[in-house]
Amino acid sequence: MNKNKDFPKRYTIKDLVKLVNGNYEGKFSSDHLIEGISSIEENDENKITFAEDEHFLSRAADMAKGVVLVEDDLINYNIDNVIKVDNVRLSYAKIAEKFKFTPYHKTGIHKTAVIEENVALGKNVSINSNVYIGMNTEIGDNTVIAPGVKISDNVVIGENVEIHPNVVIECHSEIGDNVTIEASSVIGSEGYGYITNDEGEHYHIPQLGNVVIEDDVEIGSCVTIDRGTQSSTVIGKGTKIDNQVQIGHNVKVGKNCLLVGQVGIAGSTILGDNVILAGQVGIIDHVELGDNAIVGAASVVTSDVPPDSFYLGNPAQDRLQELKARAVRNKLPKYRRKLNKLKD
Amino acid sequence: MNKNKDFPKRYTIKDLVKLVNGNYEGKFSSDHLIEGISSIEENDENKITFAEDEHFLSRAADMAKGVVLVEDDLINYNIDNVIKVDNVRLSYAKIAEKFKFTPYHKTGIHKTAVIEENVALGKNVSINSNVYIGMNTEIGDNTVIAPGVKISDNVVIGENVEIHPNVVIECHSEIGDNVTIEASSVIGSEGYGYITNDEGEHYHIPQLGNVVIEDDVEIGSCVTIDRGTQSSTVIGKGTKIDNQVQIGHNVKVGKNCLLVGQVGIAGSTILGDNVILAGQVGIIDHVELGDNAIVGAASVVTSDVPPDSFYLGNPAQDRLQELKARAVRNKLPKYRRKLNKLKD
Amino acid sequence: MNKNKDFPKRYTIKDLVKLVNGNYEGKFSSDHLIEGISSIEENDENKITFAEDEHFLSRAADMAKGVVLVEDDLINYNIDNVIKVDNVRLSYAKIAEKFKFTPYHKTGIHKTAVIEENVALGKNVSINSNVYIGMNTEIGDNTVIAPGVKISDNVVIGENVEIHPNVVIECHSEIGDNVTIEASSVIGSEGYGYITNDEGEHYHIPQLGNVVIEDDVEIGSCVTIDRGTQSSTVIGKGTKIDNQVQIGHNVKVGKNCLLVGQVGIAGSTILGDNVILAGQVGIIDHVELGDNAIVGAASVVTSDVPPDSFYLGNPAQDRLQELKARAVRNKLPKYRRKLNKLKD
Repeated sequence: MNKNKDFPKRYTIKDLVKLVNGNYEGKFSSDHLIEGISSIEENDENKITFAEDEHFLSRAADMAKGVVLVEDDLINYNIDNVIKVDNVRLSYAKIAEKFKFTPYHKTGIHKTAVIEENVALGKNVSINSNVYIGMNTEIGDNTVIAPGVKISDNVVIGENVEIHPNVVIECHSEIGDNVTIEASSVIGSEGYGYITNDEGEHYHIPQLGNVVIEDDVEIGSCVTIDRGTQSSTVIGKGTKIDNQVQIGHNVKVGKNCLLVGQVGIAGSTILGDNVILAGQVGIIDHVELGDNAIVGAASVVTSDVPPDSFYLGNPAQDRLQELKARAVRNKLPKYRRKLNKLKD
Repeated sequence: MNKNKDFPKRYTIKDLVKLVNGNYEGKFSSDHLIEGISSIEENDENKITFAEDEHFLSRAADMAKGVVLVEDDLINYNIDNVIKVDNVRLSYAKIAEKFKFTPYHKTGIHKTAVIEENVALGKNVSINSNVYIGMNTEIGDNTVIAPGVKISDNVVIGENVEIHPNVVIECHSEIGDNVTIEASSVIGSEGYGYITNDEGEHYHIPQLGNVVIEDDVEIGSCVTIDRGTQSSTVIGKGTKIDNQVQIGHNVKVGKNCLLVGQVGIAGSTILGDNVILAGQVGIIDHVELGDNAIVGAASVVTSDVPPDSFYLGNPAQDRLQELKARAVRNKLPKYRRKLNKLKD
Repeated sequence: MNKNKDFPKRYTIKDLVKLVNGNYEGKFSSDHLIEGISSIEENDENKITFAEDEHFLSRAADMAKGVVLVEDDLINYNIDNVIKVDNVRLSYAKIAEKFKFTPYHKTGIHKTAVIEENVALGKNVSINSNVYIGMNTEIGDNTVIAPGVKISDNVVIGENVEIHPNVVIECHSEIGDNVTIEASSVIGSEGYGYITNDEGEHYHIPQLGNVVIEDDVEIGSCVTIDRGTQSSTVIGKGTKIDNQVQIGHNVKVGKNCLLVGQVGIAGSTILGDNVILAGQVGIIDHVELGDNAIVGAASVVTSDVPPDSFYLGNPAQDRLQELKARAVRNKLPKYRRKLNKLKD
């Protein structure tokens, strides 16, 4: 259930119509108050929901008691109250943003925060309880540092950044504007680099680079991004990273990539722009994925992937080839009977 | 080694016999003190261990110097001191519970804890150092909040809950009674939902739902559970979740499920009751697994799984089919020679 | 970019030559100052880099403006300034160590640290802000406990240990000398052990053992290591563990093993010495991997692995066998046409 009733934010239908540049048709007055979003099933008189295709329009006709966002070129399936819009999902996102709950946003520096020398804080920052900020670190305007976040020395963080509880940001990391990092993620930890001597002992190579997170990046919870050996591990502008993703040292991720949950990328691998890695994909070190490449769930990439391709499997190959091989593989027991009839 | 010697809890054989409703046979008096549990190998005069089959009975006969729990219908392999019981593993668990070490249980509110307005705390709660509790949050009787835990606004936590250090619980989460959450897990982080515009930029859809953890759930360390988009991500009563499991937004997990280490479940997927997912299993979004379904280690579920079935492979299919296909696949190099003799 | 310019450490060429027992040839004087390491591309007059083969020697000849470490038996490809050494990578590691940046190293106990009764602290320890140390815990000389680390009761930590922010170390853990643990890892969490009753309810078996981390072990970020059921989960001397690795209860890992990112090892499994597990490898419970075994990326080990073997696949088998089976599998669609011509 939507708990924003605890801290109601209210908007009139008129306000929301203006926000999404839509048209309202229904029985409520345009001053009727909307107090939150809901699923279609839980849609009451003061909630807004959306229906993006005929299946959901039909459900909304049966169940929605409040207001429903619909595409303006779809036929209205007898829904009492609709706001017709050009892009129903984008309009929904804009409205949901208005009802978003924002904890940790009280501006100021909590008395339990520990701030070292020579730290530069922007305007309207929220530095919450038990935060640590190391020396020479800079934090931009309107940035929110939630309770328990630990930021090391010589870090640069931009404006309008939101860092959730217990995140750790190690030394020399650079984080752009409008970045979100969910709880307990680690940015800039020491990379995994060793030399093995003749006795089989592994000698650590100190990692002296850093991590650079560009603007508009969003990072899930329990994500780990190692710093570079000599230069930077880079996450490109607009890239979105899901929970429990692991990114090795020296990796370069392009712009607007999507890295879904539990993806692992080994050291020095390069991703172009708009790359999509589905959940649990693994990529070995020192390979390159071209722009717009897509890799299917749980695939293992062991060589370069061309731009605009769709790879699948372990080892990953062109998706159609992989699907053909999978289909025959699963018929193998049948073929075996045929094969055994053959004479050697 | 068992370190409970540091804080000895001592029980007589008589006490333990009563606890498990067993029968003692042996050379010690019934007032002999037991000071901890041990493996068979490390079993000394003041320790108790268990032997659940003939292999372990034989080892216990050779090595156990203290007391051994055995099934009452098994023949005693010449072990000096036994407690005969109906269910050896369950009896062992009950005894181990008595020797359990419980840090962080000192009741009261540590002076370094930060508690916001309108928080309701039950009786005998332990709020440890550097804990943060957001506004309007409720915590039930006898609940233990270990050092460094960060709990956001509008959270409800039940009775007899144990939350280990540095766990993060985001806003509006609801946690039942008798729940345990191990260290550094994140409950209720923002889900991974985006709309992509024509320029390839990903626009985040704010996630306004929450996470509901029902009674008797246990959650390992570094687990991540995202909150729902509009409604709740739900973990059903009695479900046990191992370390590093990732659960996406809107997922519904049934009752008494077992989710083993590093499992990943993508958004809006539904698990029935008593589902078992072995280690590293991945499940795509929007599929349904029936009651009592089992999925073998590292399998990738890409479609619905019927109730009472055992699935395996990537993509996962009926286990027996998968095992047949695997068997032939591994003989392929042999068949290839036969195939190459065929004329096209 | 290398940010050590903020806290410059400077060494003369003469100093570095002495450190690595090398020979300098070039246009700079031996008193020329080196202020940091760099990649070949970013190598300026006051930086040192290395070139380990002909490809990199050629790049260094084109781009390096400072000093380049090279193997003394390689021909110099017209690089202006070289230090010739016996082992270029090891020499590089030694030099990088000199430029390493070490936050959290200020000795003393921060006023916000919470330290329970009967804690024994060595000399020159650094106990940072918001650290918690439970009762009866011992910490050795020169050990650094970064901000937000939570250490439970009855823990023993050796000398020269470095524990990064927000790490959690649960009760009875034993950690040797010269160990590093990166941020947000969890050592000693409760293991995953249950008995299921006739109603399908899972009854937890309390885990009363501990975790033992031997000397010279290095552990990445968001790693989870569960404590043993009755005895110890052990990580052998010199083993190096990458980010997001999960190690179940009772596991024994040998000496000088390498466990790469997102590896998962289920309960009671035993690894010999010098075992290498590539990224995302999964190993089921109760199996044994011999000394020097190697398992390829994303493989799933379901049975014992002999010493000195190289395993690959799901389920993992001898690598050469697996590669043959993979090769034929991918030609299956072609063979299918042949097979379909056969009469049943």
